[in-house]
Amino acid sequence: MTATPELRIGIVGYGTMGRAHSYGYRVAPNVAPLPMRPIVKLLSGRDEAAVAAAAASYGAEAWTTNWRDLVERDDIDVVDICTPPGTHAEIAEAAAGAGKAVLSEKPLGTSYAQAHAAWAAVSGAGVRNAIGFNYRRLPAVALMRRMIADGVVGDVRLWRGTWLSDEFTDPATPFDWRFDRAMGGTTIADLGSHMIDMALWMVGPVAEVSAQSETFIRARPSPTGDRRVTIDDASSALLRFEGGARGTIEMARLAVRRPCDFTIEVNGAKGTLVFDYPRLNELLYGDAGDDPGLYGMRRIRAEHPGHPYAELGWPIGQGIGYGETFVNQAVDLVRAWPSGAWTPSFADGLAVQAVCDAMELSAAQRRWVGIPEITETVSRRRP
Amino acid sequence: MTATPELRIGIVGYGTMGRAHSYGYRVAPNVAPLPMRPIVKLLSGRDEAAVAAAAASYGAEAWTTNWRDLVERDDIDVVDICTPPGTHAEIAEAAAGAGKAVLSEKPLGTSYAQAHAAWAAVSGAGVRNAIGFNYRRLPAVALMRRMIADGVVGDVRLWRGTWLSDEFTDPATPFDWRFDRAMGGTTIADLGSHMIDMALWMVGPVAEVSAQSETFIRARPSPTGDRRVTIDDASSALLRFEGGARGTIEMARLAVRRPCDFTIEVNGAKGTLVFDYPRLNELLYGDAGDDPGLYGMRRIRAEHPGHPYAELGWPIGQGIGYGETFVNQAVDLVRAWPSGAWTPSFADGLAVQAVCDAMELSAAQRRWVGIPEITETVSRRRP
Amino acid sequence: MTATPELRIGIVGYGTMGRAHSYGYRVAPNVAPLPMRPIVKLLSGRDEAAVAAAAASYGAEAWTTNWRDLVERDDIDVVDICTPPGTHAEIAEAAAGAGKAVLSEKPLGTSYAQAHAAWAAVSGAGVRNAIGFNYRRLPAVALMRRMIADGVVGDVRLWRGTWLSDEFTDPATPFDWRFDRAMGGTTIADLGSHMIDMALWMVGPVAEVSAQSETFIRARPSPTGDRRVTIDDASSALLRFEGGARGTIEMARLAVRRPCDFTIEVNGAKGTLVFDYPRLNELLYGDAGDDPGLYGMRRIRAEHPGHPYAELGWPIGQGIGYGETFVNQAVDLVRAWPSGAWTPSFADGLAVQAVCDAMELSAAQRRWVGIPEITETVSRRRP
Amino acid sequence: MTATPELRIGIVGYGTMGRAHSYGYRVAPNVAPLPMRPIVKLLSGRDEAAVAAAAASYGAEAWTTNWRDLVERDDIDVVDICTPPGTHAEIAEAAAGAGKAVLSEKPLGTSYAQAHAAWAAVSGAGVRNAIGFNYRRLPAVALMRRMIADGVVGDVRLWRGTWLSDEFTDPATPFDWRFDRAMGGTTIADLGSHMIDMALWMVGPVAEVSAQSETFIRARPSPTGDRRVTIDDASSALLRFEGGARGTIEMARLAVRRPCDFTIEVNGAKGTLVFDYPRLNELLYGDAGDDPGLYGMRRIRAEHPGHPYAELGWPIGQGIGYGETFVNQAVDLVRAWPSGAWTPSFADGLAVQAVCDAMELSAAQRRWVGIPEITETVSRRRP
Repeated sequence: MTATPELRIGIVGYGTMGRAHSYGYRVAPNVAPLPMRPIVKLLSGRDEAAVAAAAASYGAEAWTTNWRDLVERDDIDVVDICTPPGTHAEIAEAAAGAGKAVLSEKPLGTSYAQAHAAWAAVSGAGVRNAIGFNYRRLPAVALMRRMIADGVVGDVRLWRGTWLSDEFTDPATPFDWRFDRAMGGTTIADLGSHMIDMALWMVGPVAEVSAQSETFIRARPSPTGDRRVTIDDASSALLRFEGGARGTIEMARLAVRRPCDFTIEVNGAKGTLVFDYPRLNELLYGDAGDDPGLYGMRRIRAEHPGHPYAELGWPIGQGIGYGETFVNQAVDLVRAWPSGAWTPSFADGLAVQAVCDAMELSAAQRRWVGIPEITETVSRRRP
Repeated sequence: MTATPELRIGIVGYGTMGRAHSYGYRVAPNVAPLPMRPIVKLLSGRDEAAVAAAAASYGAEAWTTNWRDLVERDDIDVVDICTPPGTHAEIAEAAAGAGKAVLSEKPLGTSYAQAHAAWAAVSGAGVRNAIGFNYRRLPAVALMRRMIADGVVGDVRLWRGTWLSDEFTDPATPFDWRFDRAMGGTTIADLGSHMIDMALWMVGPVAEVSAQSETFIRARPSPTGDRRVTIDDASSALLRFEGGARGTIEMARLAVRRPCDFTIEVNGAKGTLVFDYPRLNELLYGDAGDDPGLYGMRRIRAEHPGHPYAELGWPIGQGIGYGETFVNQAVDLVRAWPSGAWTPSFADGLAVQAVCDAMELSAAQRRWVGIPEITETVSRRRP
Repeated sequence: MTATPELRIGIVGYGTMGRAHSYGYRVAPNVAPLPMRPIVKLLSGRDEAAVAAAAASYGAEAWTTNWRDLVERDDIDVVDICTPPGTHAEIAEAAAGAGKAVLSEKPLGTSYAQAHAAWAAVSGAGVRNAIGFNYRRLPAVALMRRMIADGVVGDVRLWRGTWLSDEFTDPATPFDWRFDRAMGGTTIADLGSHMIDMALWMVGPVAEVSAQSETFIRARPSPTGDRRVTIDDASSALLRFEGGARGTIEMARLAVRRPCDFTIEVNGAKGTLVFDYPRLNELLYGDAGDDPGLYGMRRIRAEHPGHPYAELGWPIGQGIGYGETFVNQAVDLVRAWPSGAWTPSFADGLAVQAVCDAMELSAAQRRWVGIPEITETVSRRRP
Repeated sequence: MTATPELRIGIVGYGTMGRAHSYGYRVAPNVAPLPMRPIVKLLSGRDEAAVAAAAASYGAEAWTTNWRDLVERDDIDVVDICTPPGTHAEIAEAAAGAGKAVLSEKPLGTSYAQAHAAWAAVSGAGVRNAIGFNYRRLPAVALMRRMIADGVVGDVRLWRGTWLSDEFTDPATPFDWRFDRAMGGTTIADLGSHMIDMALWMVGPVAEVSAQSETFIRARPSPTGDRRVTIDDASSALLRFEGGARGTIEMARLAVRRPCDFTIEVNGAKGTLVFDYPRLNELLYGDAGDDPGLYGMRRIRAEHPGHPYAELGWPIGQGIGYGETFVNQAVDLVRAWPSGAWTPSFADGLAVQAVCDAMELSAAQRRWVGIPEITETVSRRRP
């Protein structure tokens, strides 16, 4: 292994995402031959004790409390952004300015304008860029997309996605950045961006949306008294895709005893596909051309050789978990380093952000909002 | 049993609903002591041979090809309307005019105006009236409603309902009344009315909706050439309830290998309840106050003594099916005959129709539509 | 309907089975055209008030407290035995002696000898005879058997059945006939006989068994003090089929929160089939020849036209329940009345009893017991 | 991290288990603070090219084709045995002789005598020893055991385990060591040993067994012509536990479209617990003392803080997979290095082996076999 060149990564942020990304880099070489060896050279975070402990735990070679140092260091190839959403764009712009490849956690920003700036920066600098839509890397989700792309279900007519979490159900949960619009972004962006990405990836561009948003728990305790929550805790929307399909989407953090249950379904002219995260190694498939005597759906165990990412996994039936989405992401990015063809890219993240912003505007103005309304406002700034 | 008075029923229509209703009347005395004995005195239908065969099969004492004869006969206590939606109001008005109790299949009409006329007729005549929202009579659905009413899940915040059918997936299915707006009504009304009724019953009135509708298969073969389909084959909507809850609803008849899969979920401040029709004897319940060490949901087997309709069913674990919804309906109506307190009533059906019409208008005009917009247009006509 | 001849039935016993059988006769004409009209002429039971109430409820024309009167009446065509197991054989013998057709609830007796006597009686008298293995009449179970018979899963190698109930979990449940070996028979016979019947029907004769039985709650309260329980409350066995397949079976009434959960699975050279009673309208099917890219099982919705009993049921996806097994049984028996080809017959019940007795002997003697050991002991008595 | 001492591991065998174990060591430091840093110093395997490639992939510092070199090297603290079962004991004995800690994959040997020798060696040498029953490290399985140990389900009455695989369904699968009794051991030992370990761990010692075994596909192709298969491809057994509980167990590699589906259930006096591997992050729990109005089972999401291994996992609802069992194993062993209290130990593996041997003897001799029959034959040799 000594001859394998290093891919030197700096991770900004040591929370759950920092842990998950470092997990991915560490494990990736264990599951596949890679052209480079990813190593976490540096971890940054504001709290000195915490970042030092995290660096030790995550296997980072060093740590810093100043992310700008990380961005500027010569021995860093990739800046991996795992901070709250409100900081993504600024860090990405700095990294691009320093000529670094950038992987940003989702969402790309807390507004289309912010995301556009990030996208413009990496495009202008010509650096590799990717966004952390990790659920794309689930074998069953990737299989779902492949089957749709292969025409297995025919023309897509209906798409639906629902993401239910109970993260915010307890009114005693104190205020933190997640409840702050400027720093955490919306529930639309936090949970919805994953689903919107899957929708765009599987079905194609969304033309317009009609959305509603609500904040049921409007204030949260803080050391200085109750603070007003500035985000939605539940939103939903109708979607019309450019290709003619119709969709519905819902994202809520107020669903009791729903820890992180998301499900997406597509109904095409020839078939149905259903993915349900609590059964993440499986994909339901109903085929209109199937023997009517066997009417029903197949529960595909998405671990068969030939299924996406199967080579990185375990013998069929054993199952992978959430962690593997980051392993698979690391493998994909390292493998694509030589070609530079990283995916999903900031452009994908930007397209998702446009839909998020459209939903937010639609909910605020109580009307259908077309995606061009969002994108055209900043088009003059495109590089 | 000789001393039990008869409740004499005339059924209009001998299709699947006519069969289901007669099934309910036949079986009802077998599952519960009843104050009256329901008997199907007369069955009407336009095709002489078919109605004669159906009468024999359904246990009707006689048959006629003229529903007006049925309505006017002295020995009929209840007119039970099982015809296509476009005819419900006219028959109901005639029945009310003849002083008969009326049970109408859903939807009450194909428009709010039509439904209003039917409601006005039964109200004016002061006759018993009910609408066939049979899924209310599923033990698990009735339990779900009871738990919500008892405050088990706290204030309701989110409600969602999805009804997926593949009834219209095959483009070779020929044109019939189901594809004709004037006779069959919409998919919103056909599938949606059940879900809207459950929403109103469980959560309360809907204030406004934003909907979309699509007709993916726009023409159907007929002996005289292709005919234009005048209904939606898939619709969805956002809901805002008067009490503040938000909802989503979808109904589609283009979902391959989804025979009749409907699911409804409610998320309240204290709990979650989920009903899924393919597991119709069960109700999922997540309790925010439950022991965190047991985090998750209970799968309530809704057949325990004390659960709704348990006394009419079988030993726990054995399960009931679709047919029992009509048996339970028959039991409920016969038992409530003396008091006259039939439920759900035409007023309930009318409230549902207002939401259906609001969805249709919203989809056509691409804007949020408040329920009063629908109801106030005919308010002058109220008796 | 006046021209349809009557099939006059006398039901002995007014408990749950009496109710279920009368339900079947009442509903049967409502779901299918029948060559005869089944009517319950008479219901017998020892408690006068109870049998009178049951007769009214079940739609029986009359009642008696003496089953021998019922057996001997001229206007009874079928004696339908719904009493505790220990009485089945005696009543069946009397009915056969009176030249009546006999339907007996399962098990046929509480011993092979007793069952043999019942079988010998009906065989000697040449009367129609059937045994109430009602779960055979579930569409999904019948489909499972048909697929096996059609060779869909190839040579059967493994069969397994488990029946878990919590009927006896509460030690405070007082002693009654179910705990009395002589009257109620064993758990092997009560729950196991259904599964053994399905095994024999699907896979063929069992050659030998090795079993274990246990009585965990050894005494039950009674008005006269604790009484000793003389049956097993949990048993299990290994099976070797004559055709070479191997099997396992378990039946227990001590499984908390398992109301009546039985599951059977067969693994053949070419496929797997799984039936699980809590999802009684479905059948899982895994096909070794299926596209490996779709590796997994189909969940067949066993309600498609062409599936067994589909003509008697509802539109696909609506589902039937436990009650329909008795409706389907009634339809089958009435339709087969002219030919006399009733099935499953007492011979089937006797074959099941041989396996039950072999399990009981095996558990007592702690050794493998071949079925011939049981059957040959009474073979001299065969007519 | 520089101050953390190394725990130097040599892995014997580079197949799936070698990959899985090295995965565990690599990932462990990423999920938890550890007192030592596990590093794979050496990997051994007979094929030079293959072992070299595996060493690179698995992150081993070096490789050798001679496992005896590995065992004897001074810079190895732990010998981790990932070879076929027939070689486990020999390697373990050599490692113990060299004073090394030993982790052996399951089963400990291909016979009780062989396993006993391995156990005697590590006991005599006083070295740390463990056996790779990795499924114990699944959070839901560990939770199941904890709840039983805490008395949550009361006295255990019934235990059942079934392991269905389709590994051997294709008769064209060529002969290899898995089909060779001397090298691969039996299906009883391969699949069954995991379940037996869970049974002993949860319920306590097994007193006696009655088993059956079959080899349905009796020969397999090889380059030199068909070779006779010397193992069972399906076995099952009845179990009597010393504490009075009864059990059933089945293990089969001939179940089409069952990739690796194992399920274990326990019924106690107060409750039921069910684990089903295809839903590995969940545990079903039925509580006899629960509110009867909520009759049914809870689906515990076994990822809540406070659940076993939760600290090593991801936010609730995200789920772990098979790989984490090896990560958790690595964490457990490294953490227990200082105390030396490794678990499960060779003594546990030996106890499992006794049950495996008893099943094999029982199947061969067609009689109940007590565990002492197996253990007493080699008791003279105990150190």
